[in-house]
Amino acid sequence: MYAITIPEPGGPEALVWAEVPDPVPAEGEVLVDVVASAVNRADLLQRQGLYSPPPGASPYPGLECSGRIAALGPGVSGWAVGDEVCALLSGGGYAEKVAVPAGQLLPVPDGLDVRKAAALPEVTCTVWSNVFMVAHLRPGETLLVHGGSSGIGTMAVQLAKAVGARVAVTAGTKEKLERCAELGADVLINYREQDFVEEIRQATAGAGADVILDNMGAKYLDRNVQSLAVNGRLAIIGLQGGVKGELNINTLLRKQAAITATSLRARPLGEKAAIVAAVREHVWPLMASGHVRPVIDRELPMSEAAMGHRLLDESGHIGKVLLLTP
Amino acid sequence: MYAITIPEPGGPEALVWAEVPDPVPAEGEVLVDVVASAVNRADLLQRQGLYSPPPGASPYPGLECSGRIAALGPGVSGWAVGDEVCALLSGGGYAEKVAVPAGQLLPVPDGLDVRKAAALPEVTCTVWSNVFMVAHLRPGETLLVHGGSSGIGTMAVQLAKAVGARVAVTAGTKEKLERCAELGADVLINYREQDFVEEIRQATAGAGADVILDNMGAKYLDRNVQSLAVNGRLAIIGLQGGVKGELNINTLLRKQAAITATSLRARPLGEKAAIVAAVREHVWPLMASGHVRPVIDRELPMSEAAMGHRLLDESGHIGKVLLLTP
Repeated sequence: MYAITIPEPGGPEALVWAEVPDPVPAEGEVLVDVVASAVNRADLLQRQGLYSPPPGASPYPGLECSGRIAALGPGVSGWAVGDEVCALLSGGGYAEKVAVPAGQLLPVPDGLDVRKAAALPEVTCTVWSNVFMVAHLRPGETLLVHGGSSGIGTMAVQLAKAVGARVAVTAGTKEKLERCAELGADVLINYREQDFVEEIRQATAGAGADVILDNMGAKYLDRNVQSLAVNGRLAIIGLQGGVKGELNINTLLRKQAAITATSLRARPLGEKAAIVAAVREHVWPLMASGHVRPVIDRELPMSEAAMGHRLLDESGHIGKVLLLTP
Repeated sequence: MYAITIPEPGGPEALVWAEVPDPVPAEGEVLVDVVASAVNRADLLQRQGLYSPPPGASPYPGLECSGRIAALGPGVSGWAVGDEVCALLSGGGYAEKVAVPAGQLLPVPDGLDVRKAAALPEVTCTVWSNVFMVAHLRPGETLLVHGGSSGIGTMAVQLAKAVGARVAVTAGTKEKLERCAELGADVLINYREQDFVEEIRQATAGAGADVILDNMGAKYLDRNVQSLAVNGRLAIIGLQGGVKGELNINTLLRKQAAITATSLRARPLGEKAAIVAAVREHVWPLMASGHVRPVIDRELPMSEAAMGHRLLDESGHIGKVLLLTP
């Protein structure tokens, strides 16, 4: 098969479409003929040599895919050859075939093209596990989503609105904020022109956000804590703004607040399977009913993955960038 | 009645035993004839003018008491005049009488002198709410307790052992550590002579502590995060080591870890009542069966509260310091 390989870490040009051995499904895995994968920020770090795949994972990038089951490994039940699926991966999605633990498979939602289902696994699992399973966002609460027009952001807005929460987003352009508003966002904050602490304060009559989904890490830490409501929960899923930040613990304590930081990729198989099962139970029905849809910026040939990486490097996208196999 | 008043904030001598008006129980409150109160660190801050009582609270210090019900306010059921009780307070325990919301009352455990029950409300509610309700310590997990010989610490050690957890403690003297060992602590760390990060690493074969109960705040923040296990929970309940600390979010993220910071006093009535109810359900039976006992350093006349404050100022105590009404 062909896959995107990284012979030498570097810029987008480091991604090389090359012939490699086919993967073989191990016990409890299925082999998927990949129709599409999608670009995640972690792929950009992996390309630069800054994020090694976890032990046992494919060396090729790609944390999610859609496609059709080509073969079942030993001990797999509940799935059949030919089933249209999408999957959460520990790597290897940028390839014509990938071996996937059966617990990380999801059916393609009714009415959705198999191609577009590649936009779903990372964003639905990340948002559901953080905003709902960890931070327990409840109806009527306010969620602040940083990077509201990203793949994660567009899914977080839709899911939070679907459960009856109020949603504020930050983004860097008017066009991105308008797209968030179309998806249901109630409060639009242009982080280049506005102070999100002040905007959240005004939008919540001084109460603050109950849950914050943050991809910035250190750069926003203090301002995020300032923006939390009493009993607020800050869920950090990315470090685009750096690793080490100053934490005012007294502010946290006065608010009885919590900070969590998670990554999907590092979780053991059992935890991933539990998240995927919860997503299938809670998110897939919202997909079937049309309350939640994947937001796709564009579709590129997988051999041109470099272009997808440039788009994310420049934050020029809204929603997900898909990579299609030939 | 008489109460400890603070005419001018300052050192221990600022505490003045003086005649003041009796409190009157409001709707949903009872009036308690106080037998004993106990000294908490928050009282030391209040004495110095650094921790104002929350709105509506008594101006006198004292966050817990034991005694007998002297009168019921309107709308109180389930309690009777003469009942021996202990209570979580928002203030006013350093007094001959105090008005208490009924939801913050607990019966004196069977077999315990009413006097000694004053040692229980703050430590049981703080430990149960943080270590069990927030951080969900489970049997077989490892709990690290900073200040293991404090009132909070001695209760945390006993409760964690009672539910089948492994317990590590830090303390500053051999005598304090020995007392923790008598209460069941498995790993003893002298923070003056040992690096707790390294000691926890060795004691857990590199895994780290699943839950940390911390009273130091900023000073220990980075080392606490270093000491956490994967899926670890850091519960901060005090800021004796300062307010602002550097947080390495990447370490937190690699460990899928959580930081919470709480205080009992600031919580609304409903949350306090829920904690008190959980303590009565889960901790009181352990008290009745003798698995958990209050650890009392000494008992002083309430008019000599200043001596109790000096003891805590110098960390010369093990367990609780009680103040007895005349």
